[in-house]
Formats: sequence, structure tokens, C-alpha cells
Amino acid sequence: MNSWAQPPMRVASDALELFCEQALVASGAGKDTAAAATRAMMHASRLGVDSHGVRLLAHYVKAIEGGRVNGKAKPRFIREFGATAVLDADNAHGALATYTAMERAAELARLFGTGSVAIRNSSHFGAAGAYALQAAEQGLIGLSVCNSDAIVRLHGGATKFHGTNPIAFAVPVQNEKPWLLDLATSAIPFNRVILYRSLGIKLPAEVASDAGGSDTEDPTAAQMLAPLGGDYGYKGAGLAGMVEILSSVITGMGLSFELTSMVEGEMTQPRHLGSYVAAISPEAFIERDAFDSAMKRYRNALRASPVRDGAKVMAPGDREWAEAETRARKGIPIDPETVQAFAGLSTKFGLQPPSQKTGI
Amino acid sequence: MNSWAQPPMRVASDALELFCEQALVASGAGKDTAAAATRAMMHASRLGVDSHGVRLLAHYVKAIEGGRVNGKAKPRFIREFGATAVLDADNAHGALATYTAMERAAELARLFGTGSVAIRNSSHFGAAGAYALQAAEQGLIGLSVCNSDAIVRLHGGATKFHGTNPIAFAVPVQNEKPWLLDLATSAIPFNRVILYRSLGIKLPAEVASDAGGSDTEDPTAAQMLAPLGGDYGYKGAGLAGMVEILSSVITGMGLSFELTSMVEGEMTQPRHLGSYVAAISPEAFIERDAFDSAMKRYRNALRASPVRDGAKVMAPGDREWAEAETRARKGIPIDPETVQAFAGLSTKFGLQPPSQKTGI
Repeated sequence: MNSWAQPPMRVASDALELFCEQALVASGAGKDTAAAATRAMMHASRLGVDSHGVRLLAHYVKAIEGGRVNGKAKPRFIREFGATAVLDADNAHGALATYTAMERAAELARLFGTGSVAIRNSSHFGAAGAYALQAAEQGLIGLSVCNSDAIVRLHGGATKFHGTNPIAFAVPVQNEKPWLLDLATSAIPFNRVILYRSLGIKLPAEVASDAGGSDTEDPTAAQMLAPLGGDYGYKGAGLAGMVEILSSVITGMGLSFELTSMVEGEMTQPRHLGSYVAAISPEAFIERDAFDSAMKRYRNALRASPVRDGAKVMAPGDREWAEAETRARKGIPIDPETVQAFAGLSTKFGLQPPSQKTGI
Repeated sequence: MNSWAQPPMRVASDALELFCEQALVASGAGKDTAAAATRAMMHASRLGVDSHGVRLLAHYVKAIEGGRVNGKAKPRFIREFGATAVLDADNAHGALATYTAMERAAELARLFGTGSVAIRNSSHFGAAGAYALQAAEQGLIGLSVCNSDAIVRLHGGATKFHGTNPIAFAVPVQNEKPWLLDLATSAIPFNRVILYRSLGIKLPAEVASDAGGSDTEDPTAAQMLAPLGGDYGYKGAGLAGMVEILSSVITGMGLSFELTSMVEGEMTQPRHLGSYVAAISPEAFIERDAFDSAMKRYRNALRASPVRDGAKVMAPGDREWAEAETRARKGIPIDPETVQAFAGLSTKFGLQPPSQKTGI
């Protein structure tokens, strides 16, 4: 969700992409790290997921400069067994780690029908959907999950226990944009709380809690999020647990509540995040034509499903693909804080900041 | 959730198990079908999931007698590729199909790190958790999903689109009961609606809709369910979609809204359900000791997490394991309608119905 006080600056995606790569290289990142981090940010910025978009550039620059993220990391596979592998990411940027892992998962899926890669010693990877999409773009079904520092209480809980622990799942649709699900297992994103603070409006009921775990609609009092599901929040917490087990337990990395904060504290120490990706080859299970036609039949039926008054039905990803189309035309909006951060990076590194898109 | 007007009859699980197997064999089922269907019903009845327990016996007998379910089915693997397989269930009882599929998925997981089996031409399989648990009992992580006849609207939708499309995920915990998640991707189960009808009480807000898709709290007006997530119901609908794609699209079986009703209509035609199971070997990713200790650390922390006023925090499955312990002691409660159905089956097949457990 965006809420701009005034029309934001809009920049062309290629200019934005170039600036991100240059700034990352200037901060000490190798070309592969700069390319992967930029690709992940641009995925989010193109699709309208601004919380995980180029807003993160300044943060990533700091993390690389401080040493938290190893800008020259050489991720390597330390374990291979059948249709699985384990990647030690060497404290790489999470995007380099996860794109590398999904590439291997996709190869394994072509060889074995499915491929699964657990990742150790990674860092923030941005939008989970970027890596699920990577598989779908190769004609495979992709799954990507990651835990993160704790901000979500348990159902009935009074303390931060899980991260927003996203689940992303992408499925190819022949000659069309993939079906793309990318959801946090929390009721809302914490960015919503921050946005509502700045707008001075109340939160919906039962989505956030104060420091004692009690529900609050006051965004300034909100300290943690509820799990997805409201009165049935044990479901959201259970799904977060599934992500936690795949990301942390089978990788040997920290549980959400053991991880250091993404945004607070020194940027000098690696966070040792774990995550997990998998790819499935539809053709292991069914002829390609039958898969393609069933997937179209499903998504078409979904899009055509009758709606409630004033409502809209969309397939997962449809909102994002529509926004991507708009942004390709009008440019990508950059919030004022990020414009300022870009100016700072430009001065520091002697770079040309991306300018307002012309000729819209 | 149970709500008994008076203390129900309670029977010992071994007597109940014997009766189910005998009734199924008498209805024309082979020994393997009777054993599998009974095992799945007993899983649910032991753990307190009565909607999927022995209440279903009379329904299964009818389905076998009518020919909808092939009581003498011989499921066979029609496709094998690397770490995957496809099982044609020959219109078997869903329990025979799914236990057979998970057994293969487990073998594949031991050989390849993960194993995935898609199932064609199956039928109602009861509680999804039964098959995830089957993997966990072998030291593996288990996943099981299935679509079902449509009863859940889309987010913003006005018509039945998805089934309750459950996701079950079970993880072994050394020397203890597994972590066991088994959730419907609907806001509530339709059984809740039926229960509230009989109790004459209002439904919670925003969990069910009338025939036009509008929210209703009147259980007699409720015709369909909302997806999990309330205002964020696109998340529940998206998760249901993930299940739909794995169960229907890659198996070539019907989409939820194309399936015939489980309970209405003739019991003569196979329903051609699809479903999907997967197993993951933790040891493909990490040493067993490290996995076991991390899993315990996670579940212990979860159970010990501070609670909100009057609330309780439980790990997935904890409620069920506690109920199973009570039922092992006191016997399994049988609702009056099922007691009557058992009496009918006893007369018809000349069987001894299970009697009230003594010596509690």
C-alpha cells in the first residue's frame, strides 16, 4: 500500500537499476552481489512492493560497508544429496544467496522432478516472491520461505516470537505472467504500522499488540503484530512455524527470536539467516500441455468468479502485474526519504542520481 | 470443537477399530482398503478431530456399496521420475491411496532427500494430518494437501470456488510426539456452521456468507465460508490456490468447483479427486543431532512463550496430543447420530457394535 502526500518523483527503471548497481559496487560489493541485490530490489520496486524495493539501497550499502553483509562473498554448496543441496552463503547479501540457491533447485528439479536447497549464513533477501518467480520464469513451480527477526506474537502470545516469515509460491502460466503468491504469515506487515503512525490513523482491530501483547489500534503503541487469521490466529502462527522449521531448524541457523534486528544496532556482525527454496517440475507429474491448459483454466475461472458488491476478485499476482505495467509506463515512484538517501549516496560516491522520468 | 448435549457414549479404541474394519469388509472392501480407511478415521477420532473420525464410517460404507469408492482398488504408480512419482489410485478410498503415496514419498526422501507423489483418481481422504504424521513417525518431515468440493468463496468473491483445501505439515521431535499442523485454508470448517445451526447460536463475524456471497452471522443462512484471514482473506484464498495447483492442476484432476459433492447425490460415480504428498529427510540438510536439538529448542520455546491475559500458547498438535491422552484413558466419544448409524450397520452386517468403555 502506498500513501504519498504529494505526487512522488518517478524514475525510469533502467536508470534506477544502474544507480543501485553503481552504489553497491561503490560500497564495496562485487559485481555479482551488486547485480543480485539490484535484481531483488527491482523485482519489488517494479511490482509495487515498495517496502522491499529500492528503499533498501541505503540500508544495504551500510550493511556492506559495515561488514554485516560480505560484499565479496563466495557462496558454496557444502552438502549435496539426491534432489537437495545446502548452500553456505558466506554471509552474502541474501539476494545473491537465494538466487544462487534457486538456480540449483531449478537444475535439480529438471533432473529429479523436484529440487530443494537450504541456505545457511545468509542475510535479508528482500521480497520472497523474487525467488519463487525465478523458478516460474523457467517453467517450474517455485517456493521460497525465510524467517526473520521476531515481530509477530503467537496466537495467545504476549511477546515477539516469529518473524513475518513469508511464503512465496509461483506457478508458470503459458505465454502469460505467472500466478504469484507472496504473503507474510503475520496479519499485516509492520510497514503498515509505520505508515499509519505517519498518517495518524487507527489500525484495524486485532492486527497489532502493545508491548504487553494486548491488542491495540493505536499505531504508536503497537510493538508487535498478530499472526494471520484473527480469532484463528493459530493457523497463521502454525504457517509461520512451518517457515521457521524450514528456514532455521533444518539449516542450523537462528530462530526468529534469536536473530539480531535487521534495522537496529551495529552493521558490523553477520546475522546468520537461514532460508529455504524449492522448485517443482510440472512435467514430472503431467504432460506439459495438460498442465498448461489446467493452469489457464484455473486462473481464468478465478478471474471470472462472481464478486460481492463493490469487490474485486484477483488471482495472486494480478495486482502486482497491473502495477508493474503502470510503472513501466510512468516510472517507479520514489518516496521523499529515499530521494534524500539517493542524494546522499550520489554525493558520497560521485554518482549521478536517477532523475524524474520524462516523456510519460 | 465438540458440543455434546449429554455425556456421549465412550468406546475403547481397539473395539472401535475392529468394528470399523469389520463393517468396511462387510460392505465389500478388501482388507487393505478396510485397514487404511480405519487407520485414517482412528487417527482423527483418537486426536479429537471428530468431523473426520468414525462419524464417516457409514458414509464410506455407502460409497463402497454404491461403487463410488472402489473397495477392491489396486493403486499403481504410473509415472516415476527422480524424486517424484504419480499414483493412479484406481478410485480407491482416499486413505489407501494417500498412505500408499506417502509410503513411496518417504522411500524417495530417504534416497533423494525429498520425495513427492501426486495422486490421481482418489477419493475423500479424511484428515490431511494423518499422512503428514505418517512421515513424521518415520523421522521425516511430511506435507499433505488435497482440494475438495467447493464451499469457500474467494476474497471478494460471491460464489463457492475452493474447497476447504487443507495443508498438513508434521515434523518429528525426538522421543516426543511430532509437531503437527493440520489446517483448513477456510476461516472456519463448515462443520462449525452445522454445529451452530443445531445449537441455534450466531456465527462469528466475517467467517461465512449467504447464497449471494454477503457476510452472514446466521448459521441457517450460511451457504459458504470465507477464506482464512478476514480482511486479509486474499492470503487464505492464495494458500487454497497453492493447494489447488498441487492437488488438481498437476494431477489433471478436477478443480474444486468441478468436483461433485462429497455428501449429496448418488454414491455410484467416482469423484476423481487429486492430492499431493511430500516427505523431506532432515538429514539431507543437517546432522540428525543438530536437527533434533534445534527442533526441541524451537518447540520448547514456543510452549514457554509468555501469554496474554487468560490465553494459552500451544504448539501445533499439542491440543490434539492432550486430547488423545484423555481419550486413551476415557475412551473415544461417539455422538448420538453415529451411535445410531453403528446400530444400523451392526444389524445389517450382523456385527457386534462397540460398547461403552468400562473401568475408566
